[in-house]
Amino acid sequence: MSNTFGNIFKITTFGESHGKAIGGIIDGCPAGIKLDFNAIQHQLDRRKPGQSKITTQRKESDAVEFLSGIFEGKTTGIPIAFQIQNTNQKSRDYSHQKDIFRPSHADFTYQKKYGIRDYRGGGRSSARETANWVVAGAIAKQVIKHHFKSDIEVSAYTSSIGKIYLEKPYQDIDFTMVDSNIVRCPNDEVANKMISLIEEVKKDGDTVGGKVTCAVKNMPIGLGEPVFNKLHAKLGFAMLSINAVKGFEFGSGFCSAEMKGSEHNDLFNQDGTTKSNLSGGIQGGISNGMDIYFRVGFKPVATIMQEQETIDIDGNTVKLQGKGRHDPCVVPRAVPIIEAMTNLVLVDFLMLNK
Amino acid sequence: MSNTFGNIFKITTFGESHGKAIGGIIDGCPAGIKLDFNAIQHQLDRRKPGQSKITTQRKESDAVEFLSGIFEGKTTGIPIAFQIQNTNQKSRDYSHQKDIFRPSHADFTYQKKYGIRDYRGGGRSSARETANWVVAGAIAKQVIKHHFKSDIEVSAYTSSIGKIYLEKPYQDIDFTMVDSNIVRCPNDEVANKMISLIEEVKKDGDTVGGKVTCAVKNMPIGLGEPVFNKLHAKLGFAMLSINAVKGFEFGSGFCSAEMKGSEHNDLFNQDGTTKSNLSGGIQGGISNGMDIYFRVGFKPVATIMQEQETIDIDGNTVKLQGKGRHDPCVVPRAVPIIEAMTNLVLVDFLMLNK
Amino acid sequence: MSNTFGNIFKITTFGESHGKAIGGIIDGCPAGIKLDFNAIQHQLDRRKPGQSKITTQRKESDAVEFLSGIFEGKTTGIPIAFQIQNTNQKSRDYSHQKDIFRPSHADFTYQKKYGIRDYRGGGRSSARETANWVVAGAIAKQVIKHHFKSDIEVSAYTSSIGKIYLEKPYQDIDFTMVDSNIVRCPNDEVANKMISLIEEVKKDGDTVGGKVTCAVKNMPIGLGEPVFNKLHAKLGFAMLSINAVKGFEFGSGFCSAEMKGSEHNDLFNQDGTTKSNLSGGIQGGISNGMDIYFRVGFKPVATIMQEQETIDIDGNTVKLQGKGRHDPCVVPRAVPIIEAMTNLVLVDFLMLNK
Amino acid sequence: MSNTFGNIFKITTFGESHGKAIGGIIDGCPAGIKLDFNAIQHQLDRRKPGQSKITTQRKESDAVEFLSGIFEGKTTGIPIAFQIQNTNQKSRDYSHQKDIFRPSHADFTYQKKYGIRDYRGGGRSSARETANWVVAGAIAKQVIKHHFKSDIEVSAYTSSIGKIYLEKPYQDIDFTMVDSNIVRCPNDEVANKMISLIEEVKKDGDTVGGKVTCAVKNMPIGLGEPVFNKLHAKLGFAMLSINAVKGFEFGSGFCSAEMKGSEHNDLFNQDGTTKSNLSGGIQGGISNGMDIYFRVGFKPVATIMQEQETIDIDGNTVKLQGKGRHDPCVVPRAVPIIEAMTNLVLVDFLMLNK
Repeated sequence: MSNTFGNIFKITTFGESHGKAIGGIIDGCPAGIKLDFNAIQHQLDRRKPGQSKITTQRKESDAVEFLSGIFEGKTTGIPIAFQIQNTNQKSRDYSHQKDIFRPSHADFTYQKKYGIRDYRGGGRSSARETANWVVAGAIAKQVIKHHFKSDIEVSAYTSSIGKIYLEKPYQDIDFTMVDSNIVRCPNDEVANKMISLIEEVKKDGDTVGGKVTCAVKNMPIGLGEPVFNKLHAKLGFAMLSINAVKGFEFGSGFCSAEMKGSEHNDLFNQDGTTKSNLSGGIQGGISNGMDIYFRVGFKPVATIMQEQETIDIDGNTVKLQGKGRHDPCVVPRAVPIIEAMTNLVLVDFLMLNK
Repeated sequence: MSNTFGNIFKITTFGESHGKAIGGIIDGCPAGIKLDFNAIQHQLDRRKPGQSKITTQRKESDAVEFLSGIFEGKTTGIPIAFQIQNTNQKSRDYSHQKDIFRPSHADFTYQKKYGIRDYRGGGRSSARETANWVVAGAIAKQVIKHHFKSDIEVSAYTSSIGKIYLEKPYQDIDFTMVDSNIVRCPNDEVANKMISLIEEVKKDGDTVGGKVTCAVKNMPIGLGEPVFNKLHAKLGFAMLSINAVKGFEFGSGFCSAEMKGSEHNDLFNQDGTTKSNLSGGIQGGISNGMDIYFRVGFKPVATIMQEQETIDIDGNTVKLQGKGRHDPCVVPRAVPIIEAMTNLVLVDFLMLNK
Repeated sequence: MSNTFGNIFKITTFGESHGKAIGGIIDGCPAGIKLDFNAIQHQLDRRKPGQSKITTQRKESDAVEFLSGIFEGKTTGIPIAFQIQNTNQKSRDYSHQKDIFRPSHADFTYQKKYGIRDYRGGGRSSARETANWVVAGAIAKQVIKHHFKSDIEVSAYTSSIGKIYLEKPYQDIDFTMVDSNIVRCPNDEVANKMISLIEEVKKDGDTVGGKVTCAVKNMPIGLGEPVFNKLHAKLGFAMLSINAVKGFEFGSGFCSAEMKGSEHNDLFNQDGTTKSNLSGGIQGGISNGMDIYFRVGFKPVATIMQEQETIDIDGNTVKLQGKGRHDPCVVPRAVPIIEAMTNLVLVDFLMLNK
Repeated sequence: MSNTFGNIFKITTFGESHGKAIGGIIDGCPAGIKLDFNAIQHQLDRRKPGQSKITTQRKESDAVEFLSGIFEGKTTGIPIAFQIQNTNQKSRDYSHQKDIFRPSHADFTYQKKYGIRDYRGGGRSSARETANWVVAGAIAKQVIKHHFKSDIEVSAYTSSIGKIYLEKPYQDIDFTMVDSNIVRCPNDEVANKMISLIEEVKKDGDTVGGKVTCAVKNMPIGLGEPVFNKLHAKLGFAMLSINAVKGFEFGSGFCSAEMKGSEHNDLFNQDGTTKSNLSGGIQGGISNGMDIYFRVGFKPVATIMQEQETIDIDGNTVKLQGKGRHDPCVVPRAVPIIEAMTNLVLVDFLMLNK
């Protein structure tokens, strides 16, 4: 149950950072959908390493191969299996890191839980896994459009890096601008500051956190299943499954805790829309047709290029010098991951809602 | 699937605010546990309405009755069914509210999704449902202690009401003080300010939001299942399932988004504990043995005693005058609910971890 | 997971033979269905003890009470909870049977698995549980008719008792005759022989087995989900969940093992129906629109009124004298149970197929 | 949910007969098990086509490749992905069979359900899928032995082909003889008759059915979860999921329907074993420590080499001449499949039972 996501449109994934391949099986995809493979690869390219100067310089082609469930370009209703080769594994000697627990990584917890781990990298805890989600999410997006004939539009963007914020509500964002810069903040001035900050941090061998805001437009009314499958709870679960995420809030979020009911209530227009939308498009766990929006907070990447003290498996203190090619900030690459997970959540609720 | 929570230790619940009864079935509870029924009732009493001047004055005895799965005081390993009668339903005329959608309630979304709803109250969307969770959580707590022989201790408290904050980290809290006042803030000075604020808000016919912090001590290492059943993701899901919750963050939470890796990393001591704990006790979705802590943000209650404009089912504008007995702030009663859901999450991971 | 049946239309049940009540929660029932409560009670009456001279003389009114999910006579889309009181528990002394394992009962296995059991009767292993299934199945039947507008008709009958067989294929059966006699065999001559046999067996303090045949007419094409949710596999699973069932076969069943492909293949008519139907209406796990039919074999009831040697919990040999009121043959009462489980399977596949 | 089997030890599979590859993901396999890869391949070899003169002459090497979840030869507790290339796809023209529905195949039902199918072969309905199950079952067998330190021994054999029966109870079988002949009947005299029958049938371009008996020795007490996860019900479900299976019975099976309780009851010995074992090792859905045994009935293969009339997608009558390389009888190759599915069921119950 631990490597499967979704109730009807389900993905089950596999893979470690230093194994032969990663991949997954999509079960529950409707039959007869003509897939746009370029669109799938495009999302993978938005996530892939080495795409800009502010991401890790590790190169992976991240080309996805489909093994089943597609015939003459169309889905057949049976499981879609896919895989992405790990092409950039270096056949170098990893034995020096075999017994060392990197701070704020999952080395320690995996070792303790399983008694064994692939010490060549993050193994299953590596964010490489999220490439699988991007593939599945890109298919989900096509199912939403072609099978459900829905205009739902999921758009995420970088809303802060460190203390640099895009001080604009999502309503004022031109989402076509998101990919116009490498940090995926749809305002060039703010984006440039963010990029500078990341470069500076990188020069120091350090890393920095940030936030992503995601908005969903053209939502149908009625998605979400009370009481233990609420739409926002499932979105929160999906976001918290992403590596390095420390917080999730939707609509008015944590700010609402300081507000009064008379300020916070969303009054209705006569057509059932609401004058304000502090609810974030969800009431009682069910979409009300207004935009959904939420924010996700990412911690700074744990791997830094500075020397740190840590321990080995025997409890000895050892010096750890970060090396290799790591992201100074995961946020820009997290944007397509958040969109993918959102599309996965939505397609599943569309199916449940039938 | 929508009314069931948990994988091995599972609860399935039922009930509306104005039906005959609410209740549930616990499946997967181990056999042979001598239950402390007073402890279960005690948790229900902490949640029940009418317990103080700052909660709704509606009275429900909230006495739980067990129908199966317990023999001679001990669990038998088969499903435990329980129910709580709804004793305080007034047999008054509800027809005036039949067709009205209250702002920021789930009336609109339930009506649109199901085409029918029990208009006498919130129906299934009512927070009355959470009494079921408190019953199940109180049993989970006993299973953790007696079946798993674990010292895990889950403690929540009110950390803010409106803009009044308890400015103390959880580490400095004396948890035995939580129930010493009616707002469940373990500092009498701050608590008194919170109580005054709630009373003032109530006098205005208004409501106010707030936050609850929860800490889990004596955690074993190894709970949580990557990659789609991470411990913190499931905790977030559980918290976001609670009525009125708008946000969840754990460990350093959203603050981490402003930090650098060199500041944020938790360095190890030689015994595998960490010098700091910004991670909040979880790495890669698995507990590392350090304290888990998280914060939950609640919006202000949507039912206010002020006149509001709203619409009816035909889109006509109507005046809505809040009446009845409602909570000016849900936060004090949410404290035992958060503890209950946390215990439910933990007992399930303990079972999965075996 | 052990006390839940179904994927979308799900029932979760509870109860022991000597507890306060049995009952369950139906999750996933569509909203807006006007329930016929008499039809539900009618099915319960067909299953209930004491209904004729060839069933146990124990009397239970088996009146079902609904606690939630129904408003003004209609389903609301939220969980339907129901319960049936156990009214006929005798407050007699059960201590003599506390430590005895009855042969071919589940006393031994429950004791060994759970270390504790309600020794006053069969506990959770009692066929009393099947009353819950009959309630849920009767609702499923109404959902099939009113929500799916389907003419699917599920009909079962007693096809053998001991060595007395109804030597007729199901195609020649007048299903309106099934309830015309107390053994539920739709042929009065054969039925009378069966009744005589059961009476004779009962006089000897003995019991006897038998078979039920079930046919499903007006099946839509396309129900069933390959490869691990095949329609016939799920039907088999449902039937094998019924107490005392030892075998399941569908279509040509075990006979097919003696046949050749040239004899067994069902050739098509031009309209897609088949000339023969040895397949039993299912190909590759998916219904093909032809009638589904299957047979279920029941062992003789284990409780006999003859003296038997057995052991107690300490391994001592003890004499066991059956007493009380037991069924000499479960088959007549199993007919509505089989129909109920079939309707539960079908409604779930109808929902999955949407 | 349709392509996943198991609750804790779960397999999710993919693949069609004429796609690139088949394979699956095993989730829930414990960490630290040193896998014997030869033993896995050995089971695949027992199932593979072309192994003898009485199976299809199609050749597939059926070499399994592992992509994840194994490090330095040991399982790591994360998903094990595997695949088997389809090497023997002929790149011939399949367009002639594009629109034809073969009798008693799943062509018709897949086409109607999904509106699209891979017409080059059986697609997902092909028994090629069972190679995935054999891989997973072979791993399950090793988990049972090494992780649970259990002596459970699952052994199946051909007990009838057409009307030729091995007239011996399983207790008298020398299971080491099963693979001593190509029909997998552990008695050379009967085996030779079976082989002759299959050869004769094959010469006629026909096919024939048969039965497999399976016995499980050294069973622990307590496996199985009432009431909707009974051990025998899950075994029946697993067996009915195998292609061409039409019936399942365990212990005394359908014979019990002709018996009396006084004949059928299994009386206890003082050590808790039973003098007879008509129950087939399971009481109330839970194993009692006695041998489990069951029988599975297979219909004759639908593809015959004789000319048959059938229809095309437009309802036109067409002549169908079987060609290609098909099994005259699936039973000998089904023996390892039945063992694999049994091991999968048992390992899952062992995990649930912890």
